[in-house]
Amino acid sequence: MATKKAIKKHAVQDWPGGQVNQVAGFRTATLHCGLKSKAEKPDLALLVCDADAAAAGVFTTNLVHAAPVRVSKAALKTSKGKARAVIVNSGNANACTGAQGDRDAESMARLTAKGLGCTPAGVLVCSTGIIGRQLPMEKVARGIAELSSRIKSKGEQGDFARAIMTTDLVPKTAAVTAEIDGAQVRVAGACKGSGMIAPRMATMLGFVATDAALAPKALQAVLADVAEETFNCVTVDGDTSTNDTLFCLASGRAEHPAIKSAKGPAYEAFREALYVVCDSLAKQIASDGEGAQHTITLYVGGAKNDAHAKLIGRAVAESPLVKTAIAGCDPNWGRIMAAAGRSGGTFDPAESSLTVQGFELFRGGTPTEFDGAQVSDALKNREVSIVLMVGNGPGRAKFYTCDLTHGYIEVNADYHT
Amino acid sequence: MATKKAIKKHAVQDWPGGQVNQVAGFRTATLHCGLKSKAEKPDLALLVCDADAAAAGVFTTNLVHAAPVRVSKAALKTSKGKARAVIVNSGNANACTGAQGDRDAESMARLTAKGLGCTPAGVLVCSTGIIGRQLPMEKVARGIAELSSRIKSKGEQGDFARAIMTTDLVPKTAAVTAEIDGAQVRVAGACKGSGMIAPRMATMLGFVATDAALAPKALQAVLADVAEETFNCVTVDGDTSTNDTLFCLASGRAEHPAIKSAKGPAYEAFREALYVVCDSLAKQIASDGEGAQHTITLYVGGAKNDAHAKLIGRAVAESPLVKTAIAGCDPNWGRIMAAAGRSGGTFDPAESSLTVQGFELFRGGTPTEFDGAQVSDALKNREVSIVLMVGNGPGRAKFYTCDLTHGYIEVNADYHT
Repeated sequence: MATKKAIKKHAVQDWPGGQVNQVAGFRTATLHCGLKSKAEKPDLALLVCDADAAAAGVFTTNLVHAAPVRVSKAALKTSKGKARAVIVNSGNANACTGAQGDRDAESMARLTAKGLGCTPAGVLVCSTGIIGRQLPMEKVARGIAELSSRIKSKGEQGDFARAIMTTDLVPKTAAVTAEIDGAQVRVAGACKGSGMIAPRMATMLGFVATDAALAPKALQAVLADVAEETFNCVTVDGDTSTNDTLFCLASGRAEHPAIKSAKGPAYEAFREALYVVCDSLAKQIASDGEGAQHTITLYVGGAKNDAHAKLIGRAVAESPLVKTAIAGCDPNWGRIMAAAGRSGGTFDPAESSLTVQGFELFRGGTPTEFDGAQVSDALKNREVSIVLMVGNGPGRAKFYTCDLTHGYIEVNADYHT
Repeated sequence: MATKKAIKKHAVQDWPGGQVNQVAGFRTATLHCGLKSKAEKPDLALLVCDADAAAAGVFTTNLVHAAPVRVSKAALKTSKGKARAVIVNSGNANACTGAQGDRDAESMARLTAKGLGCTPAGVLVCSTGIIGRQLPMEKVARGIAELSSRIKSKGEQGDFARAIMTTDLVPKTAAVTAEIDGAQVRVAGACKGSGMIAPRMATMLGFVATDAALAPKALQAVLADVAEETFNCVTVDGDTSTNDTLFCLASGRAEHPAIKSAKGPAYEAFREALYVVCDSLAKQIASDGEGAQHTITLYVGGAKNDAHAKLIGRAVAESPLVKTAIAGCDPNWGRIMAAAGRSGGTFDPAESSLTVQGFELFRGGTPTEFDGAQVSDALKNREVSIVLMVGNGPGRAKFYTCDLTHGYIEVNADYHT
C-alpha cells in the first residue's frame, strides 16, 4: 500500500499555493471560448513547456472512451513520450461523437501545434463535460488561436485549475518541493473531478508539472505506479468516466542527473514527491464529490492480499447504503459489513473488526457495547475515518470517497442535457 | 434468457389476488410481537403446510450472512428438502449477531416446531430488518406461541405479505394457475424488498407456495433456475443483503404425477408458472425500490454471450448517474454508454445502438438527431424502457431497477439506528 513507501517524507516539503505554471519551464493561459454558458467561467486552458518535456499519461479503462483520449494516446506513442503542450476544454467531453469527434480532437492538437510552432504529436488533448455533443469547433479554434498568442507574453497566465472545472465547486491543486541528488525539484499538480468519478486508471483530468529530469520510460512507470495508489483509490459514485486522463510533464530544468530507470534513490525521492501531490489531489476530488458533506477515508487491513483489500474497500466506498448512513451521521455499521461481505474479497466476519471515528463498533463477529449517540456526534465532523480489519493477512487498501446526499441528486437529476 | 422459455404461456393463467394461504395445503398467521415500534404493523409471520412439503431455497451469496440463513440452509440439508413451516420476523435481521444470533435463530425453529408438533429441521427461518442487533427473544417466543395456537383455527389468517415488510410501501404478491398433466395447479408467492436490493441468489425475502407435486431435487433445480432469471436481475442500489432468501414449498395436493426430474413437459409447465410468479414479484421489488419514481426495464442484446450482457446490464442498472438522469426525466444517454463501457462486458461502441422509450438516441458510435424535449416528455411515464444493443451476438439480459431520487436519500440517511 501507498503509505508504506510514502511515509518517509524526509526530502519532500509542502509548497503552499504552488501552481503548475510556477514550475521552471512551464506557462499556462486560459479563456472563455463559449463552451460554458456563463462568460465569466473559463472553458479552455493551455499548458506549455518551453522545450520538449518528458511526458507520461494514464487513461480511462472505459471501453467507451472519448476522442481526445484516443488522440493523446496516439500522440504519446508517436512522440516517444515527449510533449510541448496540453490543450484542455471543459463543458464538452467529445465522447460518443463518432468520426467527427476524432477529427475535432485532432484539429485541437493541430491548431495548437500551429500556434506554438511544434508538431501535432507534441500536443496532448483533454476534454471534459457533457457526453454525446459535437464540439462547436469555430469557437474552439478561435480560442486556441487567442491562447497561443497570449502564451507568448509574460503577462497574466490565467487560472488553469479553474478553467478545467465542470461541476467542481473548488479548484484543486497540490504542490511540493523535493531534493533529488542535491538539487531542489518542484512538483505541482491540478485536477478536476466531482461526478462520474471512479477512476480505474486516472482521475477525470489531472495534470502534474515538474522540473525534475526523467527519461520518458521512468516517468511513465512512476506515474502509473502512483496513480494506482492515489487517483485509482477515489470513488464518488462508481461511474468511471469516458475521459479520465492524468498527465505528468517533466521539463528537466532542475539540476540533477536525469532519472533513467524505475529504481534507485533519485527515483524513490521523485516517486515520493509525486505521491504526495497526487494523493492530495485525489483526496480533494472526494472532498468535492457532487453533493458531498463528508469526506471519508476508508482503510482496509488484514486482508489475504492487497487485491482482496481493494475489492472490499471499493464495495464499501461505493455502497449507497453506507454513503447515505454517513450523510445521516448514522453509525449504521451493519451496512459496512454487508457491503464488505458482497464485495468478492474473501474474509471471515468472525475475525473482523470495524472502527468508525475511533470507536470500535464490531469485533469478532459480534457488536460491541457502544454509545450510538456519541458515535453519531463524532460523525458530524466533515472528515470521517473508517478502519475495517478483516483478519491478520498482509493485504491493505485505502479509499477516499464522500457521502451520498440530496446534493448529489440535485446536481445529477437537474443537470439536464 | 428468461423470455425465450417463458414466452409460450399456453398453460399459465393469471390468478388475480391469489395468496399463499389460498393454495391447497397452506395456511398462514401473522401478528405484532413488538419488533416494530408501531403496534398496528405486524412483524411476525408463520406459513404452515398441512403435511411435509417439498421445499427448496436459494440464499444470499454475501459472505456476511445472517444467522437465519445458516439455520435454514442446515434445516433443508437435514430434512432432505422437506419442510412443514416457515417462521419469518421483520424489524430485525439477526445478522452480525455472533453466536447469540445463531442460538436465537435455532430457538425460533425449535419454538415453532414445538408449537406445531414437528421436528426443528422441518422449520425454515427468515429475518429482515436492521443489522447488528440481538433479537428480543422473549417477545419473539411469546409471538411464536400465539401464532402456533392461532394457525390451528380456521379463522383470520393474517396478511403474510404485509407482515414481512420493512421499508416497503406496498405488499407484493403474484399468483397463477397452470395445467400440469391435466390437473390444475396453483402457484402463489409473496416477497419483500425495497433497499439493500441486489440479490445475487434470491431476493431479500421471497416465498412461493404451490400445490404442485415435485420431488425436492426437481424443486430445487427449478427454483435456482428461475431465481437466476428473475430475482437475480433486480437491483435497487447494488447492495446485496445479508439475509436474501427465496423459498418454494410444494404441498403436492394437485392431482398430477409427481415431477421427479428437471426435464420433460410437466417440469417445463411448472417452470413457466413459477417464472411468471417470480418475474412479477421481482418487478414489484424494483417498482417499490426505496424512493422510486420510475420503474426501469433494461434489455441488453447483441452481446458476446449472456454473461457479458449481464455485466453490461448490471453496470447500467446500478449506475447512480443513469438512475438520477431517469429521476430527472433527462435523456442523458451518454451516461448509459459510459456505464456500459466500464462494465467489464466487451463490445464495440461503433456497433451499438440505444433506444429509450422507443426513441433511438445513439447508433453506430454517433448520436442520432432526436428531439430531446420529446424524449424527456416520454420519460415522465412511470414505466421506462431502455434497450441497449451492443452488437450482433446471441447474449441477452434483462434487468429491473428504479431511479435514484431524494426519496432514497431520505429513507436511508434518516433511517437511524
